[in-house]
Amino acid sequence: MTSPADATTAEVPLEVLVSRAFGPEAFFELGGLLPELAEDLSGIEDRLKGALPSDFPPLTEAVLYACTTGGKRLRPLLMAAAHRALGVTSTKPIHALAAAFQLIHTASLIHDDVIDHADQRRGRPSVLRAFGLPSAIVAGDYLYVRAFELAGEYPQAIILRCGEACANLAEGEMLQEAGRFDLTVSRDQYLRIVTRKTATIVSAALASVGDVAGSTAPVVEALAAYGRAVGIAFQLRDDLLDAYGEPDLLGKPLYADFREGNPTLLSLEAYQHLQGRSKAEYERLFARREKRPRELARLRTLTDMTPAPRLVEAEGRHWAAAAIRALDPIPPGPYRSLLERLANAAATRRY
Amino acid sequence: MTSPADATTAEVPLEVLVSRAFGPEAFFELGGLLPELAEDLSGIEDRLKGALPSDFPPLTEAVLYACTTGGKRLRPLLMAAAHRALGVTSTKPIHALAAAFQLIHTASLIHDDVIDHADQRRGRPSVLRAFGLPSAIVAGDYLYVRAFELAGEYPQAIILRCGEACANLAEGEMLQEAGRFDLTVSRDQYLRIVTRKTATIVSAALASVGDVAGSTAPVVEALAAYGRAVGIAFQLRDDLLDAYGEPDLLGKPLYADFREGNPTLLSLEAYQHLQGRSKAEYERLFARREKRPRELARLRTLTDMTPAPRLVEAEGRHWAAAAIRALDPIPPGPYRSLLERLANAAATRRY
Repeated sequence: MTSPADATTAEVPLEVLVSRAFGPEAFFELGGLLPELAEDLSGIEDRLKGALPSDFPPLTEAVLYACTTGGKRLRPLLMAAAHRALGVTSTKPIHALAAAFQLIHTASLIHDDVIDHADQRRGRPSVLRAFGLPSAIVAGDYLYVRAFELAGEYPQAIILRCGEACANLAEGEMLQEAGRFDLTVSRDQYLRIVTRKTATIVSAALASVGDVAGSTAPVVEALAAYGRAVGIAFQLRDDLLDAYGEPDLLGKPLYADFREGNPTLLSLEAYQHLQGRSKAEYERLFARREKRPRELARLRTLTDMTPAPRLVEAEGRHWAAAAIRALDPIPPGPYRSLLERLANAAATRRY
Repeated sequence: MTSPADATTAEVPLEVLVSRAFGPEAFFELGGLLPELAEDLSGIEDRLKGALPSDFPPLTEAVLYACTTGGKRLRPLLMAAAHRALGVTSTKPIHALAAAFQLIHTASLIHDDVIDHADQRRGRPSVLRAFGLPSAIVAGDYLYVRAFELAGEYPQAIILRCGEACANLAEGEMLQEAGRFDLTVSRDQYLRIVTRKTATIVSAALASVGDVAGSTAPVVEALAAYGRAVGIAFQLRDDLLDAYGEPDLLGKPLYADFREGNPTLLSLEAYQHLQGRSKAEYERLFARREKRPRELARLRTLTDMTPAPRLVEAEGRHWAAAAIRALDPIPPGPYRSLLERLANAAATRRY
């Protein structure tokens, strides 16, 4: 298995990424695609790195730190695979765009960590903790700006797609804030938050790949639907891993959602299924602004008493399946198969 | 004179703005331009307001709050005047661009207030204070994004100008952070901070007006130089008003720079000119992380003992004069005169 150190290394080889996401057997099945994908990812990385340097070294340092924490590179991988699945022989035209979406994603994580007071991210101190609040705010702003400079290389329609996705992200963050510490949030409202905070940006990234490739409207819509569903599957898995994952693999401590009082499908389902005193205890603990380690563990134990973990896992698989179905208008081939595998990986990954 | 309430009203009539900036006599001299300028500002305002609504009402509320606090509308006014000074009969083509720059400016103020823990802005609670930290971070991000959507209506070169100016702004904020509580910052370094934090964005806004109007390179460069110099004059006046202005007119308490330990030309010059025990006292008080009201007042009293206020005022006038000289390649006429007046107003305004 992978060691925690891998997760913190700037340049994780693609083989390791693939192995983590799909299991070691994927080497044999996907072997032929790996060189092309590695080339894609490295081209995207070049554009991303090229956008970072500022005239003020400490700012460059903070954004480099934020952008080279390994990460899963799921978005660039999805975009590159989708572009190739459309029969395009080179992903060059989407390098800058994929870099833009990756920068937007990173910017949003930096600011999220400020809002959530998160100390850890991908096995290292968060930008907030490593560089302080002013740097974290400025670094996030800077990455948004650099992202839009990169997006500025594309037609206005694509800039608007980026912008709309970022606006959704902001709305999702606010919606999440509004529902904090509140277990009466409905399942629908939770899905609205997830759609806005996570899924819309993946959806926009994939749809814009279709735009760049000059695809027909049904193909662009298929990619958008695929991205939306993968994004939801991904987030549901995130929620589950936050309570049931291995901290060493995740690169951060468990129970951030319990701690911050962010209702997820896991806690909402657990709360729905608990009864009597257990339900009251769950509600009371969840609503605490400051929670002790044993209170966090107790929330997890109470969750274990319900079918919530199973339900969330099933829901994730449901969205992965929906993502795969959405790919119908995309020509079959090894890259469409890869997109299918990535959808399943989003719902079953261990980190 | 204007009442403090005016400063907090969303729609301050242009006459009032002009009167505040230039004094009442300007009505007679500028009377002919006012209807055109009012039309310009209202067109810009329409594009700005049109960009704000989000699907999540509380986010819309926060950004509307941030964008309708009156303010001086100096940037839109400069851009509209510059566009007309170039002989363009309508400013319509720059409405979206001016709105974009105004949104960028507002976004940076919201995030600045988070970094500076500022409670007040333009006579009302800051977004941070009124809506909380998460909303302030998200609202700033959202405005940056909407700004770039608007900028996306223009050619890539203009998007890059916006982006570069925002990157400078971020660098300036970081430079300022790095020099906080430190009176050994050099005058050059202070001017670098001001250039990045304030002047570059005004410069980019004006240069992009030249781009949109299809002006020659010398004219674009003249506008850029004018904007840079006006920006510096404006900021020097801001620094002075922070210690010598009328809080009611300013809409915020005095001494924010002393309190936050932001060295300005005022404190740097005062420190340079003080000697012996006074100098030591100044340094000690300035470096305090928490300052009491009487310590803030003492810093001002010590500043009064030096030629610093006079020097800063003179420096502001120097930059205003430089701005006016930079306008040489612009065709003479009422709008160029207006730009000259605006430069002087930036250096002499009372709020």
